Amino acid sequence: MSPLRLGLLGLGTVGQGVISILGEHSGLLEERAGRPLTLTRVASRSAKPEVDLLGASFGTDPAALVQADDVDVVVECIGGEQPCLDLLTAALGRSKSVVTANKALIATHGDALHQLASSSGAGLAYEAAVAGGIPILKAITEGLVANRIEWLAGIINGTSNYILTAMAEQGQDFSSALATAQELGYAEADPTFDVEGIDAAHKLAILAGLAFGRCFDFAGVATEGISGIAPIDIEYAARLGYVIKHLGIARFADGAVETSVHPALVPEGAPLAQIKGVTNAVQVGADALGSTLYTGPGAGMLPTASAVLADVVDLARGAPPPRRLAAAAAPMAADDRETPFYLRLQAQDRPGVFARITTLLSNAEINIDAALQQEHDASTPGTTVPIVLLTRPTTRPQLQSALEQLEGLADQVDDVQVLRVESLKP
Amino acid sequence: MSPLRLGLLGLGTVGQGVISILGEHSGLLEERAGRPLTLTRVASRSAKPEVDLLGASFGTDPAALVQADDVDVVVECIGGEQPCLDLLTAALGRSKSVVTANKALIATHGDALHQLASSSGAGLAYEAAVAGGIPILKAITEGLVANRIEWLAGIINGTSNYILTAMAEQGQDFSSALATAQELGYAEADPTFDVEGIDAAHKLAILAGLAFGRCFDFAGVATEGISGIAPIDIEYAARLGYVIKHLGIARFADGAVETSVHPALVPEGAPLAQIKGVTNAVQVGADALGSTLYTGPGAGMLPTASAVLADVVDLARGAPPPRRLAAAAAPMAADDRETPFYLRLQAQDRPGVFARITTLLSNAEINIDAALQQEHDASTPGTTVPIVLLTRPTTRPQLQSALEQLEGLADQVDDVQVLRVESLKP
Repeated sequence: MSPLRLGLLGLGTVGQGVISILGEHSGLLEERAGRPLTLTRVASRSAKPEVDLLGASFGTDPAALVQADDVDVVVECIGGEQPCLDLLTAALGRSKSVVTANKALIATHGDALHQLASSSGAGLAYEAAVAGGIPILKAITEGLVANRIEWLAGIINGTSNYILTAMAEQGQDFSSALATAQELGYAEADPTFDVEGIDAAHKLAILAGLAFGRCFDFAGVATEGISGIAPIDIEYAARLGYVIKHLGIARFADGAVETSVHPALVPEGAPLAQIKGVTNAVQVGADALGSTLYTGPGAGMLPTASAVLADVVDLARGAPPPRRLAAAAAPMAADDRETPFYLRLQAQDRPGVFARITTLLSNAEINIDAALQQEHDASTPGTTVPIVLLTRPTTRPQLQSALEQLEGLADQVDDVQVLRVESLKP
Repeated sequence: MSPLRLGLLGLGTVGQGVISILGEHSGLLEERAGRPLTLTRVASRSAKPEVDLLGASFGTDPAALVQADDVDVVVECIGGEQPCLDLLTAALGRSKSVVTANKALIATHGDALHQLASSSGAGLAYEAAVAGGIPILKAITEGLVANRIEWLAGIINGTSNYILTAMAEQGQDFSSALATAQELGYAEADPTFDVEGIDAAHKLAILAGLAFGRCFDFAGVATEGISGIAPIDIEYAARLGYVIKHLGIARFADGAVETSVHPALVPEGAPLAQIKGVTNAVQVGADALGSTLYTGPGAGMLPTASAVLADVVDLARGAPPPRRLAAAAAPMAADDRETPFYLRLQAQDRPGVFARITTLLSNAEINIDAALQQEHDASTPGTTVPIVLLTRPTTRPQLQSALEQLEGLADQVDDVQVLRVESLKP
């Protein structure tokens, strides 16, 4: 059978990984794809690198590559929205199939690109965009195809999970855990995308779009980072039987999709509570199958390239892509969902303060399930003590109005730390 | 597009699950498959049951169903080798595709059936045969297609994992944990297939055949059950930092495949050590991707039916099956592999016995990494005490010859309990 001719855009980590596996496993890939995979062209904006390009021609003009007649599949490993959107639009417009690891692009322009692919008959695949090499998109769209997926929850950013793990295991604060992550190469110099949840929100938008057959709606993901998590929160959570994790959660209920990335308390016995360091994991709740969990390396040169090439082999075998249905549901505001909440207040160390706070919350219909309070220390009047409360399930707006009343209370100082508690059950 | 016409063989648990999902999700399945999935015929040896057959005709002659012109895909949910082998051979011979949940059949006759499917151009799929609804075969053959898989280890029998979990958490002995499992419906009246590892060996033979592109060789799986595990072993393992799990392990090295089902000590921090109760999990070590783990329900009506219908939808979409390569490697004897071993001896409670035993082992080139020994009790001479040893990595034959010498030692009584220690690392 005729070779499948690949044009590679980008020679960063992932692009080099793709070349590495293509070189290392050319025989194995040909056997499994039923035809040779031939790298015909490589384009990168920088000058030709030291890497062995397996006989491919090199150019610095990506736009020329996507037009070239000797390229059947464009493998995009540049990243970021532009010029990738223009390049892949051009490729699909010329009926060239596209494989990409670009989560930002798919999360924001995935629907338009799918429409283009569908009308030109080309393939569009992006397994590598979510959770690195873990074949989670294939699991969702093919393995679980006979299910209505009800919810999914993932640890889908290795950097923030590394930081939370270090804070929990070594008692580091956020800044020093971040600094360690940067030293080890797990965090960028500017860590905003990772620690503020933007990267996870890109991935969650893709997961939710595929799991629920809806649009990719990055803008609709309620996103909250982990920079506000203090070591004391991790400690109190542990005393209550919870681990703090940075989760991406998506739910489908009443015809609407709810998507949110936020730090949350997870029961210490929950499977996602066991996920340590840079490892990624996605738990999927489906109506027939129940709960399954997919765990593995969420980033890295070869794991990500492994997913890119799985997509390429699917194209080479002529496997029809999972059907992407036209559908659109306005995401439900994450604020509508009832969960327990963790509250940490700093209050004046005066007799009766705990009772005044819980009475006020109770009047605002916020009921308390568990509390941790340091004993009143009569010897040092005027100091403040932390009070930690676990509420019964309530909504964010309901909680918010109670917290506003709490601000009027003279006993309480500083902002209240508010974290959701996620049971991770259907 | 024309409907895909399904003929269902067997109306046991899995068959009823298939009908249930087909009825519940007919719209969803049609949307995702791109065509209706129509159940045209059902055959079962028993009389027509109470179940709503979705308009399908019912018969008690399975052989007539596989010949029927209005059946495109035979969905086999009978189980066991015969009459299934004859039925599916007939179906494939008539170029009808086959989807089956039958692990015993595939593990022993999978190669012959694949050959038949390949020459008749029909599909043959069996995701449901391994680890219930977890899409592990798809992960291995498609998701990890760009990798050379190096090893895999699984908890692939829920019954035996339930029993070991109950023994560890409730201190039950094997018999009473088995009785509880039987009461809860997790174990059959005759539990041999599950607790002696035969069911796991069927699944492991399939996993290994697909992961390494080799023949399905059930007979080549070294199989050992869990009925010999005593509560004291679980307790000693815990004191040494290990959990006892019933594992299926397959490795590819030096062109040969090694497959074994056996109880083993697993480090308590290892992902498979966390798998409790009837849950299944498969860990896969691959050269590019590294280690990934797939966890979920390993049995049950709807989870298993979910996998059956995923295969059906793949056929309906016209997805070409992963290429199954003709290959054969003689499995390496499991005895050749070096691992640490756990040894539990019962010895006379006499001074110097520990030193005599370790000296004998050391002379036989078995070195000791850790030991647990009750203190000698001078007040009750003539009693026996357990001695537990963890050896450094060695082979089974080397260990065996040392153990034979040990039998000559007057200090030692009863058989030695011998369990492998599996690091579950590449």
